[in-house]
Amino acid sequence: MKANRTLLDLFLEAQMLDRIPRSGYVLRGVANPESVTEHCWHVLFLVWTLGAKIEGIDLSRAVEIALVHDLAELRIGDLPRTSSHYFPEGAKKTAEAAAMADILAPLPERALALYAEYQQGTTPEARLVKACDKLQLMLKVAVYERWGTGALSEFWDNPDNFPDGGFPAVRELFEELRTRRNAAVRG
Amino acid sequence: MKANRTLLDLFLEAQMLDRIPRSGYVLRGVANPESVTEHCWHVLFLVWTLGAKIEGIDLSRAVEIALVHDLAELRIGDLPRTSSHYFPEGAKKTAEAAAMADILAPLPERALALYAEYQQGTTPEARLVKACDKLQLMLKVAVYERWGTGALSEFWDNPDNFPDGGFPAVRELFEELRTRRNAAVRG
Amino acid sequence: MKANRTLLDLFLEAQMLDRIPRSGYVLRGVANPESVTEHCWHVLFLVWTLGAKIEGIDLSRAVEIALVHDLAELRIGDLPRTSSHYFPEGAKKTAEAAAMADILAPLPERALALYAEYQQGTTPEARLVKACDKLQLMLKVAVYERWGTGALSEFWDNPDNFPDGGFPAVRELFEELRTRRNAAVRG
Amino acid sequence: MKANRTLLDLFLEAQMLDRIPRSGYVLRGVANPESVTEHCWHVLFLVWTLGAKIEGIDLSRAVEIALVHDLAELRIGDLPRTSSHYFPEGAKKTAEAAAMADILAPLPERALALYAEYQQGTTPEARLVKACDKLQLMLKVAVYERWGTGALSEFWDNPDNFPDGGFPAVRELFEELRTRRNAAVRG
Amino acid sequence: MKANRTLLDLFLEAQMLDRIPRSGYVLRGVANPESVTEHCWHVLFLVWTLGAKIEGIDLSRAVEIALVHDLAELRIGDLPRTSSHYFPEGAKKTAEAAAMADILAPLPERALALYAEYQQGTTPEARLVKACDKLQLMLKVAVYERWGTGALSEFWDNPDNFPDGGFPAVRELFEELRTRRNAAVRG
Amino acid sequence: MKANRTLLDLFLEAQMLDRIPRSGYVLRGVANPESVTEHCWHVLFLVWTLGAKIEGIDLSRAVEIALVHDLAELRIGDLPRTSSHYFPEGAKKTAEAAAMADILAPLPERALALYAEYQQGTTPEARLVKACDKLQLMLKVAVYERWGTGALSEFWDNPDNFPDGGFPAVRELFEELRTRRNAAVRG
Repeated sequence: MKANRTLLDLFLEAQMLDRIPRSGYVLRGVANPESVTEHCWHVLFLVWTLGAKIEGIDLSRAVEIALVHDLAELRIGDLPRTSSHYFPEGAKKTAEAAAMADILAPLPERALALYAEYQQGTTPEARLVKACDKLQLMLKVAVYERWGTGALSEFWDNPDNFPDGGFPAVRELFEELRTRRNAAVRG
Repeated sequence: MKANRTLLDLFLEAQMLDRIPRSGYVLRGVANPESVTEHCWHVLFLVWTLGAKIEGIDLSRAVEIALVHDLAELRIGDLPRTSSHYFPEGAKKTAEAAAMADILAPLPERALALYAEYQQGTTPEARLVKACDKLQLMLKVAVYERWGTGALSEFWDNPDNFPDGGFPAVRELFEELRTRRNAAVRG
Repeated sequence: MKANRTLLDLFLEAQMLDRIPRSGYVLRGVANPESVTEHCWHVLFLVWTLGAKIEGIDLSRAVEIALVHDLAELRIGDLPRTSSHYFPEGAKKTAEAAAMADILAPLPERALALYAEYQQGTTPEARLVKACDKLQLMLKVAVYERWGTGALSEFWDNPDNFPDGGFPAVRELFEELRTRRNAAVRG
Repeated sequence: MKANRTLLDLFLEAQMLDRIPRSGYVLRGVANPESVTEHCWHVLFLVWTLGAKIEGIDLSRAVEIALVHDLAELRIGDLPRTSSHYFPEGAKKTAEAAAMADILAPLPERALALYAEYQQGTTPEARLVKACDKLQLMLKVAVYERWGTGALSEFWDNPDNFPDGGFPAVRELFEELRTRRNAAVRG
Repeated sequence: MKANRTLLDLFLEAQMLDRIPRSGYVLRGVANPESVTEHCWHVLFLVWTLGAKIEGIDLSRAVEIALVHDLAELRIGDLPRTSSHYFPEGAKKTAEAAAMADILAPLPERALALYAEYQQGTTPEARLVKACDKLQLMLKVAVYERWGTGALSEFWDNPDNFPDGGFPAVRELFEELRTRRNAAVRG
Repeated sequence: MKANRTLLDLFLEAQMLDRIPRSGYVLRGVANPESVTEHCWHVLFLVWTLGAKIEGIDLSRAVEIALVHDLAELRIGDLPRTSSHYFPEGAKKTAEAAAMADILAPLPERALALYAEYQQGTTPEARLVKACDKLQLMLKVAVYERWGTGALSEFWDNPDNFPDGGFPAVRELFEELRTRRNAAVRG
C-alpha cells in the first residue's frame, strides 16, 4: 500500500506506535498501560546492557534487531495472545513480515533482513532480543504488581515468559527478579 | 480453550470488551476513544430504532444479531484496517468465527447461528446490522470532528463507510448526517 | 427543550452517554471506570441471555426495556447514590421520566411506555431488567476487585445490590459470583 | 447520614472532589476536563485577586465563601445544566443546602452560614463569588478552545455566563477575555 | 520574561496548574494522580479549618499564604524529590522565588511578600501552611492506599512527612490518620 | 544515593521513564502526551536511520548516545523550558550529569562517557543526536497539530527547534516537514 513512501512518511507513521497499548495489560485491567513504543525502548536498553556482557554477541547488530523487532504492530496492531488460537498456524508471522516489507520500504534492504533474522531467531543476536523481549515483560509485570494494579499473577506461571536464550546473564536476572517478586508477595 | 466455561465465565469475560478501544480512532489521535462495548450499544440502538420503521424486518432477530456482532474482538482484538492487507483472504473472518464458537459455548447454539447470519450478510436483518455498524461509525466521526479531536476527514471519502443495506431509511440518515457535517466544516 | 428534534439529533446526543462515567466507581477510585453506555450494553446482554432461560418472559420486550432503561442520564447525569438523601422523595424518578419524554420524542410513543414499565417495575420483564442492572454492577465490581483497583468491598454488604426479581436463574448467578469472589479474597 | 463525623472524615471525603469532572466539559468532548476541585481553586484565586481591588468588599469573608461554594457536589455530583429542566423549581438548591449541612457538620455553624450567604447571593461578597464562578468558567473555555479541544462556542452566546455582579473590575476582565478570544477565532 | 503581563495573562497561565500532576504519585504508579491545583485547594481548606481552631493565628493571612504557596510550579514544574540531591543547595528555592516574582508581577507587591514569608517559614501562619502541605499529602496517600493504587507505603516511614508546626491540632490529626491507616492495613 | 545498586535496580527504575510526560506538550493542552520513553525511542530510530546515510558517522556509538541521552529525567523530571530562566546558568546541566552518575552506576564507565559526549555536543555523533532530538520534537508537533490537539504553533517560530547539526540529510527533513505542515495549515 502507498507506493513511493518517503523517509518522512515512515517517521510520521512511526509516531503512531505510541498510541498502541500492549494488549496483555489492557485486558488485565492495568491503568495507563505501557505503549508498544515504551516496550521497544526498554528492550533496546536491556539488549545493549546485557549484550555488552556476553561474549560473541555483535552488540551493534543486536541493538539494530531490537530497534525494528515490533514495528509490524503499526499495521497489524498488538494482537492479544488468545488470537493465536484462531488464526492458521504461521499466519501472524507471515502477516508481520509482509507488513514490515511495506513499513520499511523507504529504508535500505538491510533493515528488512534484520527483521527476518529476528523472526528466525537462530543467531545469538536474535535470541538475545527475544529473551530481552520477555525479560522486559516480566520487569513491567513486577512494577505493575508493586503498584497494585492489574491481575497479572498468571504471567509468573507461564514458562514461555522466561526464555534465557541460552545466556546465563539473562537467566540470572530472571531468577533475581522472581526472588524479589516472591518476597514482595509474601509481604 | 478453557473447556466447561460457564455462563458466569462468559459474563465476566464480556466485561473486558470495555477496555478494547476502537483502533481506527486510536491511530488517528482521538482522545479517550470509544470502546468496542460502546460501539456495540449504539449499533443496537440504531438497529432497534430504524428496524422498527422498515417493513419486513424481524426486529427481534435483528437486535439479537447486533448484540453478538462484535464479540469476537474479546479474543482477536480490534484489528486496524491495514491488517487486512497482510492476512490471507478470509483469515480474519475464519478466526472470528472460531473465536465466537469458544466465546458463545455456554449459550444455546442459536447464538452462534446469529453470528453466522451476520457474517454471511444476506438476510435483511444482517444487512441492517451491517449498515448500522457503519452508520454508527460515521455518527461518532461527526461527533469527534465537532469536538476538534482526531484526523478523521478521510472517513468521509471512503464509500465503504456508507452502506445503506438497500434501506432508504438508512440512506436518508447518511445523507442528512453528511449534509450537516459539510455545513459545519464550511463554518 | 429543543422542539422538533429529529432521529439524527437523538442518535448524535446518545453518543454522549459514552462520556458519562458511573459515579459509584468514580467516587471509589476506580481508574478508567465504566461508562453508562458500557453498563447498558452488559445489562442488555444479561437480559437476553438469562431471559431466554426463564419461562413466561417476553424476551423481545425485556430487551427493549433494557435498551432504554438508563437513557435519562443523558440529561440528568449519573447521580451518586448519596444524592437520594437530599432530593425530595420521588424527585429523581419524576425528573428522569420528564427527561425521557424529551429524549425519546423522535421515537414512537411505545418507547416511552417501555420506560414507564421499567420505572413501575411490576411486570416480569421490568423485574428482570432491574435484577440484571444489579447483577451487572456486581460482575463489574468483582472484575475491578480482581484488578486491585477501587475500594469496593462495601458493595458486597448491601442487600439492595442483590435483587433476584424472583428468578432462580438470577439468584444462582449472584450466589456463584459471591462464592467465587470470597474465594479470591481469602486468597 | 453518618452521625458523629469527625474533621478527619470531612478531610478524607473532600479528596473525592478531585474525581468529579465538570459535566459541562465532559458532555462537550473536552479531554481530561477540569475537576470540581480545580474549578474551586481558580475561583478562590480570582476572588482574592479581584476582591482586593474592590472597595467595600470584606475580602476575608469573600474568600471563605469561595472556599465552600461547591462542596455540595461531593454528595450531589456535578449535574449537567439540562437537569434543571426536569427537577422541580428550587429542588437542587434545597438538596445542596441539605447536603452541605451534613458535609460541614464537623465545622462550626459559621461555615454553613457562609454557604447560605452564597445561595442567597445578595451581599457584595456573595455576588463577587458568583461572578468569579462564571469568570473562571469562561477563562477555562478560552483555554480549551485555544487547545482545539471541545465544542464550546455556545458558551460565548449565553448571557448567563457573564455576570459582573455590578463590579466594573469583573466586567472589564470579561470584555478583555472576549476580545482576545474573538481575535484568536478570526485567526 | 514577558514584561507587561496583565491580570488576564496571569489568570490564563494559572489554568495550566491543573495539568501538572504531582510527581511523587506519578513515579509510584498512581493512576490519574492529583494535580498541583487540587493539592493547593485541599491545603487551603485544611489551613482555613485548622487555623480557626488555633489561637494566635491570623487566619486571613494564613489562607493567603496557602493560596500562593505552590504557584512557582507553573514555571519550574513539580520536581521529583530526588532532584534535590543534584541541584546546588538552595538552588530550587532561589529559582522558585525568581519564578514567583515574574508570575505575580501583575499583583501588588504584598503577594510576593506572602510567598517570601512561606519560604522563610518562621511565622505561625507560614508554619501552619507548611504543616498542612504535608497533612494533605498524607491524607491523599491514605486515600490512594485504600483504593489499592500506587506503591506508597514508604511515605509513612519518612518523618519529614509529619511536621506539626508546633500545633497540637495538626499533630492529633496526623496521629488519628496513622492509626486509622494502620488498622486498615492490618485488615 | 542508594549505594550498591544492581543492574536489576536500574532496569526497574528505568520503567518509570514511561510515566514522565513531556512537559512542553502537557502545558499546551495535548491529550495523552508522549512520554519521555517514547521520545527516546523515536530519537533512536531517527539517529539509526539518518546516521546510516551520513559519511563519517560512527553509527554504533551514535545509537548508544541516543540510548542514554534523556535518562537523567528519571531523577530530575522533565523540566519545562521556562525553568531555565530561574536556575543559575549551567545548574541543570550539572544536575543532570550528577544524576546520570548515580543512575548509570551499575554500568561500565563507558556509559557515563557517552552522556558526557552528548552534553559537550562537539563530536559528529553527539551533534546528530541533538539534531534528531529536535527533529523528533517537530515530527510529533506536526502529528499533534494534524490531530487538532494542543496549542503548538509557536514551536514552528523558534529557530532553536531546527538544528541540523551541519547535516544536509537532517536539514532536508526539517524543510520537507515544514513544507508539508504549512500546506496542511493553509488547508
